[in-house]
Amino acid sequence: MNKVGIAATGLTKFTKDDTSIESLMGLAVKPIFEKTNNLEQKDVEAVLTSTNANDKYLANIVSELCGISPKIAHSVESLCNSGTNCIVSAYAYIKSGLAKTALVIGAEKTDSPGLILEWDKSRGQYKHPIYWSSLFTSAHMRKYGTTLEDLAYVSAKNHRNALDNPYAYFERNFSLDEIMESKNLTENVRLLDCSMPCNGASAILLASEDVITKFTDTPIWITGIGQKALSAGFTKNDDLTSMASSVYSASNAYKMSDRRPTDVDVAELHDAFSICEIIELEDLGFVKKGEGADYVKQLFDMHDRKINPRGGLIGTGHPLGATGIAQTIEIFQQLQGTAGKRQINNSKVGLVHNMSAASTSSTVLILES
Amino acid sequence: MNKVGIAATGLTKFTKDDTSIESLMGLAVKPIFEKTNNLEQKDVEAVLTSTNANDKYLANIVSELCGISPKIAHSVESLCNSGTNCIVSAYAYIKSGLAKTALVIGAEKTDSPGLILEWDKSRGQYKHPIYWSSLFTSAHMRKYGTTLEDLAYVSAKNHRNALDNPYAYFERNFSLDEIMESKNLTENVRLLDCSMPCNGASAILLASEDVITKFTDTPIWITGIGQKALSAGFTKNDDLTSMASSVYSASNAYKMSDRRPTDVDVAELHDAFSICEIIELEDLGFVKKGEGADYVKQLFDMHDRKINPRGGLIGTGHPLGATGIAQTIEIFQQLQGTAGKRQINNSKVGLVHNMSAASTSSTVLILES
Repeated sequence: MNKVGIAATGLTKFTKDDTSIESLMGLAVKPIFEKTNNLEQKDVEAVLTSTNANDKYLANIVSELCGISPKIAHSVESLCNSGTNCIVSAYAYIKSGLAKTALVIGAEKTDSPGLILEWDKSRGQYKHPIYWSSLFTSAHMRKYGTTLEDLAYVSAKNHRNALDNPYAYFERNFSLDEIMESKNLTENVRLLDCSMPCNGASAILLASEDVITKFTDTPIWITGIGQKALSAGFTKNDDLTSMASSVYSASNAYKMSDRRPTDVDVAELHDAFSICEIIELEDLGFVKKGEGADYVKQLFDMHDRKINPRGGLIGTGHPLGATGIAQTIEIFQQLQGTAGKRQINNSKVGLVHNMSAASTSSTVLILES
Repeated sequence: MNKVGIAATGLTKFTKDDTSIESLMGLAVKPIFEKTNNLEQKDVEAVLTSTNANDKYLANIVSELCGISPKIAHSVESLCNSGTNCIVSAYAYIKSGLAKTALVIGAEKTDSPGLILEWDKSRGQYKHPIYWSSLFTSAHMRKYGTTLEDLAYVSAKNHRNALDNPYAYFERNFSLDEIMESKNLTENVRLLDCSMPCNGASAILLASEDVITKFTDTPIWITGIGQKALSAGFTKNDDLTSMASSVYSASNAYKMSDRRPTDVDVAELHDAFSICEIIELEDLGFVKKGEGADYVKQLFDMHDRKINPRGGLIGTGHPLGATGIAQTIEIFQQLQGTAGKRQINNSKVGLVHNMSAASTSSTVLILES
């Protein structure tokens, strides 16, 4: 069967400016048409929109805004990993032969209805994501001796990486001390351990192997996909030092692509909170369980950008429906060698990890040049 | 490549009872597990939910409710044809090899936010769908001499067909006179020309050819798919006696399945309003342009159930996100020979037509036994 690749990408700067969802989406699509030789509106056969916004018929509205009349158009929602769900749907449409190309567009606003887990009565009053991150933090501290300083290293590293990302929400460095002293939201989660809700949009053009060279000489291929929706509430994740759906997704993505963690040159991990990156480094096989915090410190000290080179969710901001797509754009640029100041030399294999609601569901993608 | 088929289906009665979206979805899934030999929760690899409701993370919530931990889980929204968009996504996931099985679940409530085209400022105060149906009606009357009585025949036929559908919202016959005398909502759209918003849910289990016989001896195959999203507003449909996106979708679905309109034994057409069925009969090639109304009269007089045997949207009710899936269930049952009193003899080839917002987008599916 035809391979599926990424041909072009577009981003808006992540801000708190008030712009409508459909305008944000249009702004993310604009650079794709500007930068892509030979791409015409009639070439786009599917438009899939990713958002938690309550707007209806958004894929059609944005298509009309962009002058596109696709065959396939609809919105996809799965909280914070809506973006990669959308990319995987586009992959499926192309791989199945129903479309030759697909435009995937994610956007979110600061006041997204997906930010609070209103639907989960089993969480009582603790519906804000800071509470599940606090539970993961406590568990990891108890089992592996992780410290508040370890968490601060994640935030400091990702904020520093974001300084070279012109689309990032944050535009200044934060020292370890500043992070340690930022406001306590729970006993072990500080303000600067959190990703920031913001406005932003991201877009990706995918195409099948037999047409992609019309649009680019350097396509990036999606070679591995792993997904798992374990539950909606906390009912299925027995061990809070690990994210079971992410372990499962990574294992399947590695298997599909015939790659191992040691093959990965660059990775975007879903650092909704500092503790997430530490656990994910372990769960995705980059280090052994309990060694995530030391590895982050090492990356920080070495100025190594391998993990979350664009600044992660913590440094770049987290417009929910745009995040998974923005993560994928970073890996695309790294593998194409177009990541500018953020470029990691000789990146051939990249990984995207995107998850929702305490990792009750996850997506892992493997990309290759 | 593997064929994709429908293995099992489930429905709730369409009512105005107040039941939550997730409960409705669970109730539609229940009969699938009850009726399907060998089906276990672990067999379900994808759960896609179809709705216009604003609930987030619904595919995960319903999965947990049903004891399923799929790989793929998300919601799909495209107003009134969310249901068939969801089915086509499931098809793509299976055809692409990402899943062996997929459960597609649609549900809606009477007060769905998808009922009014709030987003379309180009319609001024005329945002309710009755206004676009009135424009189509006027245009068809002018060009083809269609009468108010012709419209009443559509409603009378579909209400009569619905009498043999235990899941239909309406449970009584309506005479031509009653329909003619029902309240005028516009100069040419009466209350009984309209489909009724209601609560309801529908679910379908799809599976790939190599595993489907584990679940059923009589799978129904999806052999043709056509989709088109022409626009969001009225900007692209030049001729209001025709639905351009439906013409395009039908043409592609016939081509993919290598079938012609004369091959179709039974069809579900999206009769959101009486005029829709007349135009769709013409646009999908069952009769020539201008002959739709006479054909409906003929079906009525002959008690022929070929078009909208379950009673269409007008007789069955229209819970938006559930409709396209419920239409597909009817064709599944007709082709399996399990449609009871509604059964059309020797049905081998069936068609589903589902559309959104004045046919600005459409889906056509061809199913075969």
